[in-house]
Amino acid sequence: MTSATATFLLSAPDQPGLVARFAGFFFELGLNIIDSSNHATVRQPAAKGESLSHGGRFHMRLVVDLGALASPQALARLGDSTSRRALEAAFGELAEGLAAKWSVGYSDVPPKIAILVTRESSCLYDLILRQKQGELPCEIALIISNHPTLESVAEGFRIPFFTLPVTADTKRDQEEKLLALLRRHHVSLVVLARYMQVLTDAFLADAPPVINIHHGFLPAFQGARPYFQAFDRGVKLVGATAHYATKDLDEGPIIEQDVVRVNHGMGPEELSRVGRDVERVVLARAVRSHLERRVVVEGRRTIVL
Amino acid sequence: MTSATATFLLSAPDQPGLVARFAGFFFELGLNIIDSSNHATVRQPAAKGESLSHGGRFHMRLVVDLGALASPQALARLGDSTSRRALEAAFGELAEGLAAKWSVGYSDVPPKIAILVTRESSCLYDLILRQKQGELPCEIALIISNHPTLESVAEGFRIPFFTLPVTADTKRDQEEKLLALLRRHHVSLVVLARYMQVLTDAFLADAPPVINIHHGFLPAFQGARPYFQAFDRGVKLVGATAHYATKDLDEGPIIEQDVVRVNHGMGPEELSRVGRDVERVVLARAVRSHLERRVVVEGRRTIVL
Amino acid sequence: MTSATATFLLSAPDQPGLVARFAGFFFELGLNIIDSSNHATVRQPAAKGESLSHGGRFHMRLVVDLGALASPQALARLGDSTSRRALEAAFGELAEGLAAKWSVGYSDVPPKIAILVTRESSCLYDLILRQKQGELPCEIALIISNHPTLESVAEGFRIPFFTLPVTADTKRDQEEKLLALLRRHHVSLVVLARYMQVLTDAFLADAPPVINIHHGFLPAFQGARPYFQAFDRGVKLVGATAHYATKDLDEGPIIEQDVVRVNHGMGPEELSRVGRDVERVVLARAVRSHLERRVVVEGRRTIVL
Amino acid sequence: MTSATATFLLSAPDQPGLVARFAGFFFELGLNIIDSSNHATVRQPAAKGESLSHGGRFHMRLVVDLGALASPQALARLGDSTSRRALEAAFGELAEGLAAKWSVGYSDVPPKIAILVTRESSCLYDLILRQKQGELPCEIALIISNHPTLESVAEGFRIPFFTLPVTADTKRDQEEKLLALLRRHHVSLVVLARYMQVLTDAFLADAPPVINIHHGFLPAFQGARPYFQAFDRGVKLVGATAHYATKDLDEGPIIEQDVVRVNHGMGPEELSRVGRDVERVVLARAVRSHLERRVVVEGRRTIVL
Repeated sequence: MTSATATFLLSAPDQPGLVARFAGFFFELGLNIIDSSNHATVRQPAAKGESLSHGGRFHMRLVVDLGALASPQALARLGDSTSRRALEAAFGELAEGLAAKWSVGYSDVPPKIAILVTRESSCLYDLILRQKQGELPCEIALIISNHPTLESVAEGFRIPFFTLPVTADTKRDQEEKLLALLRRHHVSLVVLARYMQVLTDAFLADAPPVINIHHGFLPAFQGARPYFQAFDRGVKLVGATAHYATKDLDEGPIIEQDVVRVNHGMGPEELSRVGRDVERVVLARAVRSHLERRVVVEGRRTIVL
Repeated sequence: MTSATATFLLSAPDQPGLVARFAGFFFELGLNIIDSSNHATVRQPAAKGESLSHGGRFHMRLVVDLGALASPQALARLGDSTSRRALEAAFGELAEGLAAKWSVGYSDVPPKIAILVTRESSCLYDLILRQKQGELPCEIALIISNHPTLESVAEGFRIPFFTLPVTADTKRDQEEKLLALLRRHHVSLVVLARYMQVLTDAFLADAPPVINIHHGFLPAFQGARPYFQAFDRGVKLVGATAHYATKDLDEGPIIEQDVVRVNHGMGPEELSRVGRDVERVVLARAVRSHLERRVVVEGRRTIVL
Repeated sequence: MTSATATFLLSAPDQPGLVARFAGFFFELGLNIIDSSNHATVRQPAAKGESLSHGGRFHMRLVVDLGALASPQALARLGDSTSRRALEAAFGELAEGLAAKWSVGYSDVPPKIAILVTRESSCLYDLILRQKQGELPCEIALIISNHPTLESVAEGFRIPFFTLPVTADTKRDQEEKLLALLRRHHVSLVVLARYMQVLTDAFLADAPPVINIHHGFLPAFQGARPYFQAFDRGVKLVGATAHYATKDLDEGPIIEQDVVRVNHGMGPEELSRVGRDVERVVLARAVRSHLERRVVVEGRRTIVL
Repeated sequence: MTSATATFLLSAPDQPGLVARFAGFFFELGLNIIDSSNHATVRQPAAKGESLSHGGRFHMRLVVDLGALASPQALARLGDSTSRRALEAAFGELAEGLAAKWSVGYSDVPPKIAILVTRESSCLYDLILRQKQGELPCEIALIISNHPTLESVAEGFRIPFFTLPVTADTKRDQEEKLLALLRRHHVSLVVLARYMQVLTDAFLADAPPVINIHHGFLPAFQGARPYFQAFDRGVKLVGATAHYATKDLDEGPIIEQDVVRVNHGMGPEELSRVGRDVERVVLARAVRSHLERRVVVEGRRTIVL
């Protein structure tokens, strides 16, 4: 039996010794670090002699084998309990002393996600099939749409489907219902898989993280019809961008993007067809990175550890 | 001895039979078509029964073996001369009847180009070395710069180098000198290989075609510091775009573009470094396509046959 | 109403005037050529003065608008009938005179294909979903497998599914049943979407064209476990190759291939996961090119017009 | 003034706590870790409960700011000296206890490299120009060729050039001279930039590390004429591979590789032309990774940290 793993993701003001401090914490517990990566946002030294990373932020991801959590060594350190809760409490203490923000996930507790769609099935099918194949460590708890079109897809895979039609008048009401659904299903990530509605700031403030797929190479083609814009401008590549949704439309931190070569013989429809292939892959990669707890947001940028 | 080839590039209002008409012209002369490609800009039919390509434009590129130009068959058709001038006259007549614009180039008469630079040597070296290796069918007639920095590079390859420093006051005067230089050297293409000056509309109106390399994936990052913009926005790919210079800065028809993957660990300088690799390749491909007479401009787009 | 189109694909010994001859055929009928492309396999001239393309082969693809097939002009040329049969007869006569092999397909008569699978669903889902979205101009007539695993997928989309288990003893018998199924359903293309059985020469000799997806960048990693080979060799890219099946395993003419970047952190399973994304796209592109009648086989190579 | 940095690269049998141990070493000296990355070669657990990484190897790269090496804290730890030699001695002690192999380089002591060429200038120019632009942290100490063709290139950049013609009879003698040249110039890396001679095992055993560029996507096209092989096989992508030279030709550990899309219209020469663009970039990336001390060899694979 392979033991479960815990993945810690943390961000702190940079200072010397952070790698040693955080790695040392698990070393002393006798827990093996299976994978770790870190990145410090370097700021150029303002004054002579100032340390290079002064003022930057430090980000670290640690994957820890929990097999030895019940060992005497861990018990001695954690006190009278070697539960995950005790581990989190001890780590939290260390983090607090270093002003670090952090989160943790466990390999045997897959997070629940919600997929929001409208009428296009391409990204939806792709996410469902990847989840079934074990590529996305999560459970697709429910699918929500403003149209009933894709209900049969959800049914085929026995995933709960909810229709919440939206008009200008009902938008806020429906968003409240949406929030209630997300809470009831303990959703920790919302994926907009070609959901053709703009979400309000109020919704985004209350919702779990939201990942959107934009069918264009941002920031090049913002707005609703990027393939038509791309065609008019005669670009030689079309792309797709997955980003966290923020109140500024198409301006959220970019998680992943990619492009594919096109040529003058392709009209907007053909661009759209080849673009869909990129969209699916880019969205799946972004969702996977998020679920694997690799993505840190720093201002308008992301760092994918 | 391989005989010379002629490359014809033409554009005409689309109508049925154009491929047959133009191909037939050379067939009747007994000249072999080595390579041909064509593209019609399709407009959707406005009314029932209307032909699909009605109202579009037709573009064709033909490479013809001139070996049989002195044959009796060609002589019979062209009249008392089988010179290139006679061939052009006959083709011009056909083209006129079909309202076609056209141009022709000969493999044994390489066109002369001018390269404009400022201080960065990367693209300049690349173009010179490719030309020496036979990748760019042209002669680099001269290099012009607003700074003396790269004079030694030109000297090393024995290419004439002219310095035309530009200030706000002298811009138009220097552009006049520039135009005079281009005319004196019979330049038919100007390549801006990181030339850090904006050319005036007046200059562009009088100059031969001008190809510019923009160190960003247009239309995403216009303006002067695309790598800093790319870093701030946290993009996952950086790119470069080669386009014809027009009076709207960074808005000219795109000839070629490409991208390369980057990550969060790269600062603006590192982005700039990997970006230079893309810039060079993209600029070289665009210049080559132009020299091979493959590029047709249609509005804001190009068609690369 | 948009009228139907016919797509002609032909190959002939090269000679001057072929473009003009074939294009002229449709011009004289008053049929508009919507799209055309051609390629001559150039052989270097052996002797001075010999024409460049002497001895090569000429390949051409023509897409023709059939809207004017009932016009008086076409009637006058084709004789007393303007049926597709009459068109084919007239074209066949021209082709015969030029020793050309050719085939034709019609946009309103989608060809029927069979998909062969074993247990992996990734490519199968992808082909079905693309066909439903209109990306693949065909009808998926049936799915055949040596295992019952994927029957539910077929059922979900209401596509007939047949299980033909194969052992060393039953192979030829089962292949005979397979051939019978293909004939009964008028299948003109077989797609091996991760079908884990080697087909015999006898089968391939009697079957319609067969496209296979190899999950490796051929000719690099032949055989059964390319991702393990790729991992052992520490390659930095993994790829996939779609090719026509021939009696030499993994040696058939390549139609399409692509790669994706990988790194040292990925084990064979992870390589397999990212490889699946390439496989699906590569197979779909190859099937589409074949269905659009763009692929010519010349010896061990393909030309994709 | 920015202080110098030291880059440590190490490999050890994996065990819990290594990240903490090595990072802790520098923490206790008060030296800031600017960049670090590590990778453990995971072996699947053979028995229930066995730790995941048991039996694998651990690789780590650490970049350390030497600014604080003269501080009282470092002095207290290192004894009576805070020289680089003292730092290396202390680190060596730690490494020995963990059975680690390691090496270190300093940002202000660029290593010397030798470039071996024959007649093709493309890769040579590329490496020289990148070094001049600061992309390759090294000094090009000398260029050696078996032909005098490229001497003028070396002269143009004032780099010492040596001609060592090779015949079957003189090979071993010339290799001895080559080794002597490398030693005299304190060369720590040899780059084969299209050097058209096979080096003997004896030479490789005595020489510093040797990086070779193979103009094909290994392991697909081994041997001398990969572009001709690629053409004959009709591949849709051509590539290049940079690898360490070993006694098995074209079988050494791969450092970097890349591909570019090609089509049926390209003959072997055209494939060669587009291939050169990939070769240069791939070779430069590999050399840079080596110089930045990122490359670990493990059996037939490399890990690029």
